Amino acid sequence: MSQNNSYTLTVSCKDQSGLIAEITGCIAKTGGNILNLAQHTATDIGMFFCRISFADAETTPSFSENLFKQNFEKTAEKYNLNWHIFNNSVKKRVAVLVSKTSHCLYEILLKHADGALDCEIPVIISNHPDLAHIATSFHVPFYQVDPGKGKEAYEKDLNQILKDYKIDLVTLARYMQVLSGDFCREWHNKVINIHHGFLPAFQGAKPYHQAWKKGVKIIGATGHIATEDLDQGPIIFQDVIRVNDTQSIEQFVNLGKDVERRVFVEAIRRYLAHAVFFHDGRTFVIE
Amino acid sequence: MSQNNSYTLTVSCKDQSGLIAEITGCIAKTGGNILNLAQHTATDIGMFFCRISFADAETTPSFSENLFKQNFEKTAEKYNLNWHIFNNSVKKRVAVLVSKTSHCLYEILLKHADGALDCEIPVIISNHPDLAHIATSFHVPFYQVDPGKGKEAYEKDLNQILKDYKIDLVTLARYMQVLSGDFCREWHNKVINIHHGFLPAFQGAKPYHQAWKKGVKIIGATGHIATEDLDQGPIIFQDVIRVNDTQSIEQFVNLGKDVERRVFVEAIRRYLAHAVFFHDGRTFVIE
Amino acid sequence: MSQNNSYTLTVSCKDQSGLIAEITGCIAKTGGNILNLAQHTATDIGMFFCRISFADAETTPSFSENLFKQNFEKTAEKYNLNWHIFNNSVKKRVAVLVSKTSHCLYEILLKHADGALDCEIPVIISNHPDLAHIATSFHVPFYQVDPGKGKEAYEKDLNQILKDYKIDLVTLARYMQVLSGDFCREWHNKVINIHHGFLPAFQGAKPYHQAWKKGVKIIGATGHIATEDLDQGPIIFQDVIRVNDTQSIEQFVNLGKDVERRVFVEAIRRYLAHAVFFHDGRTFVIE
Amino acid sequence: MSQNNSYTLTVSCKDQSGLIAEITGCIAKTGGNILNLAQHTATDIGMFFCRISFADAETTPSFSENLFKQNFEKTAEKYNLNWHIFNNSVKKRVAVLVSKTSHCLYEILLKHADGALDCEIPVIISNHPDLAHIATSFHVPFYQVDPGKGKEAYEKDLNQILKDYKIDLVTLARYMQVLSGDFCREWHNKVINIHHGFLPAFQGAKPYHQAWKKGVKIIGATGHIATEDLDQGPIIFQDVIRVNDTQSIEQFVNLGKDVERRVFVEAIRRYLAHAVFFHDGRTFVIE
Repeated sequence: MSQNNSYTLTVSCKDQSGLIAEITGCIAKTGGNILNLAQHTATDIGMFFCRISFADAETTPSFSENLFKQNFEKTAEKYNLNWHIFNNSVKKRVAVLVSKTSHCLYEILLKHADGALDCEIPVIISNHPDLAHIATSFHVPFYQVDPGKGKEAYEKDLNQILKDYKIDLVTLARYMQVLSGDFCREWHNKVINIHHGFLPAFQGAKPYHQAWKKGVKIIGATGHIATEDLDQGPIIFQDVIRVNDTQSIEQFVNLGKDVERRVFVEAIRRYLAHAVFFHDGRTFVIE
Repeated sequence: MSQNNSYTLTVSCKDQSGLIAEITGCIAKTGGNILNLAQHTATDIGMFFCRISFADAETTPSFSENLFKQNFEKTAEKYNLNWHIFNNSVKKRVAVLVSKTSHCLYEILLKHADGALDCEIPVIISNHPDLAHIATSFHVPFYQVDPGKGKEAYEKDLNQILKDYKIDLVTLARYMQVLSGDFCREWHNKVINIHHGFLPAFQGAKPYHQAWKKGVKIIGATGHIATEDLDQGPIIFQDVIRVNDTQSIEQFVNLGKDVERRVFVEAIRRYLAHAVFFHDGRTFVIE
Repeated sequence: MSQNNSYTLTVSCKDQSGLIAEITGCIAKTGGNILNLAQHTATDIGMFFCRISFADAETTPSFSENLFKQNFEKTAEKYNLNWHIFNNSVKKRVAVLVSKTSHCLYEILLKHADGALDCEIPVIISNHPDLAHIATSFHVPFYQVDPGKGKEAYEKDLNQILKDYKIDLVTLARYMQVLSGDFCREWHNKVINIHHGFLPAFQGAKPYHQAWKKGVKIIGATGHIATEDLDQGPIIFQDVIRVNDTQSIEQFVNLGKDVERRVFVEAIRRYLAHAVFFHDGRTFVIE
Repeated sequence: MSQNNSYTLTVSCKDQSGLIAEITGCIAKTGGNILNLAQHTATDIGMFFCRISFADAETTPSFSENLFKQNFEKTAEKYNLNWHIFNNSVKKRVAVLVSKTSHCLYEILLKHADGALDCEIPVIISNHPDLAHIATSFHVPFYQVDPGKGKEAYEKDLNQILKDYKIDLVTLARYMQVLSGDFCREWHNKVINIHHGFLPAFQGAKPYHQAWKKGVKIIGATGHIATEDLDQGPIIFQDVIRVNDTQSIEQFVNLGKDVERRVFVEAIRRYLAHAVFFHDGRTFVIE
């Protein structure tokens, strides 16, 4: 999906007049040609969100990221912008944390191999040895970290691996360890979890059992940011599937897997596309 | 949808051997020809649910409902069956209770006029005068009942109208009065409510506000039996619609209306088709 | 949905550098504050599409549509833009053409009454008297035009009514007369039809019969621009519904109605939101 | 999904009175306990379809498949039934034919490994070497057959492998060779193909290119029986995904892959569940 010399700029701030003209003017002046711009002002809360993809306009001189940053810094100060620029040729490094269940791990590896996820996957980490063979068959290093030594030591080991591999984003592919508040804060807005329920209903354990008992007619899954409050972090993507009352809990679990893996990868894709803005405990996905 | 001389038989009981052969044998022996049979044994809980539509087989003598009932009573005692037989030419009488919002009322009246709901709608009752003109234009008697006189007196009036009109099923089309426990018990499993949220998430008031604040990506509606525990009754049908983060709470409300009216009428359709079985606080919809 | 003093600007052209900066700069300079901007460059065909909603920025002097047009004309010439500006307080005038089937007519009238369609509906025209009572109950003038007098005379009458009512958009709500090539050309890209099939499959008559015979598992409807080639005009919106093999053709027809009315109104909503761009025989809906 | 000593009986015939009583009576008399019965009479064409799952009722003597067959043969002759009984512990043997694209192959192997497909997959056959490594990592024998030697010789080789492995069902997982009429007749109703388009629209090559050019708003995939008329065989399952006009043909292809693999496996699952009846060029899926 990425192109040579293409960039994505994200901007959020309090809504003000003339923002887009100013921002897109900076891009044009430094030699960028906009390919896609999605902007939205949430008028209820007066917030401006904007995501711009642009390429080198092939004028002379060519677009310079450094020059743009210098110029844009003044605009950013004037309007008090929260902004980031990403060079799309620099791929994000994504770690996958797993336990014993394979469907989300397979999904991210297959989508990555197929070019549908614009990132690198340099490492897979688990608290169990069970899925090592999948890592091997996709030629990704696999680390087993032992939670038996206590959460603090365990997370120290985990953190070390993440840092060694220069990880930008941690993804929890049905990873069955609760992360500490310290870990979540250190990786603030950088840990994506898949919850096998349609949040905010069915928080906590065994959501499919809860759903069956309640006789719901639709089940779902939620891709969200992991926070200290379990299953309460900002939601990035959700999807559902219709179930019927001739289906058993076991069938709910199997049907749910399809939704989980789809939601897991789509949440990551949105994040990697820089389409996810965080504000006041929720996301705004603008693309 | 109904045909002359067609019948629906519903049976639920603890699972036992030979049930279907026995049941369908009774139908065949008394001159019925089965058109559609849906049966499911929920093995997790050992319960048997069965719904059979059949027509007069046009043998001589023709099918007799009374004769069938006499014969079937023995089978029912032997197997301890919970059963009902419905003559499909006798239409159920459905009351619609409304307040100020019109979309669910219009939906049930239009679907009924179009032959998509197999029932009669002899009366519309409201705690407000606002929607009287709709009742008028569809030639349905409209009653306004005053909640100002206290819940007991109010529900007495309500009950009188329901009885005068020989109502079989009460439907709450965005009706904004909470019904008492006494009323819900008297009309046990005979009051269908539309909740404008995806239960069990977003119970109570202003579910779309809750959903927007939480940043959910999908909103829904739930058609369920009204019980004393608000928004906790057995679920009959649910549906959802995808929302995006450029949409305001007001837009959620408008999008939600489409889901609500669809779910409201589909829940009623399932009920009228005798497809809804109640067991242990939930439904099993078998069709 | 519209606000006082809000505007929508649409621009399409061959892709060029600096377009958005130039366009949004014009808006900012003449006192507009952008609320929502959706832009997309279809790189496969090198086309730029952009839709901008903006409000008066409440600076002094306030935004002037005339001044903007004068300024923007230069930009438009320089870049060879195809552009339109719409004052959102000036509502489009939409005519509804019907025959005997009511579900699409009811849908547009109910959505309009509910504030979900940002337009006026000043007239309903039919080749049959059957639906006059619906027009009456919504207080919309109803005209019956007689196709028996020959297509030319018939369309002349039709055109006269459309002109008398200063109609901007003609909508065919299951209207069963084929419009002539002359009529379609005169109202180029201004006639929206609902086809009761998932185009390009099932063109022509009785699409549900075709679908049932083929044993398809999903049926759909298509909202598209009416052109001389029946059912071949650019597609604006489509939706589908899952069917199963226990359902009859009659049930397909009934299920299809729900999809048709939803698609019909959503296609109109997109058009009225100025989100539909036409290029090379297809649409690009950018919102 | 299968259970020890459980069976599935399928019956289709012209509709007649007393069929279900007779059929279920036979099951009960020989010691079977029905777990799930789905029956439907397509009244438009007067055809009766019935699928019954039952288990050994654990009476003495236990259910005997042979005894049942002897008894049932008389019923079958009397009513002119088309019937099959399947012992659910005898798994169907499914061959997967592939070319260069991996997503459908991975999907069937992963679903099989996860217990979601009730069959054996003893062999993978391809006209290219590219996907051999996937077969290896799932420990399934892989055969490459050379189409360069002419279709007749090629299909002879193919047939030999299918017979050596005692294959019951051939699945085409984005297999890019056209099968001959002779082959399709020999394997009549035993070859399932995934077409990457929503049939009957977009038959033939490059359906996503056709869809993009037409500007459709929804794309789909179709799982169907392979017949001599390419993309014309009876449809078993279909699904769709919404696309928008900012997406390129390349993105259509990627989005389509998700639908294709889902439809491919679901079509096979329905077939293996004995839920697919064939009649007059279409399927009736009864479950």
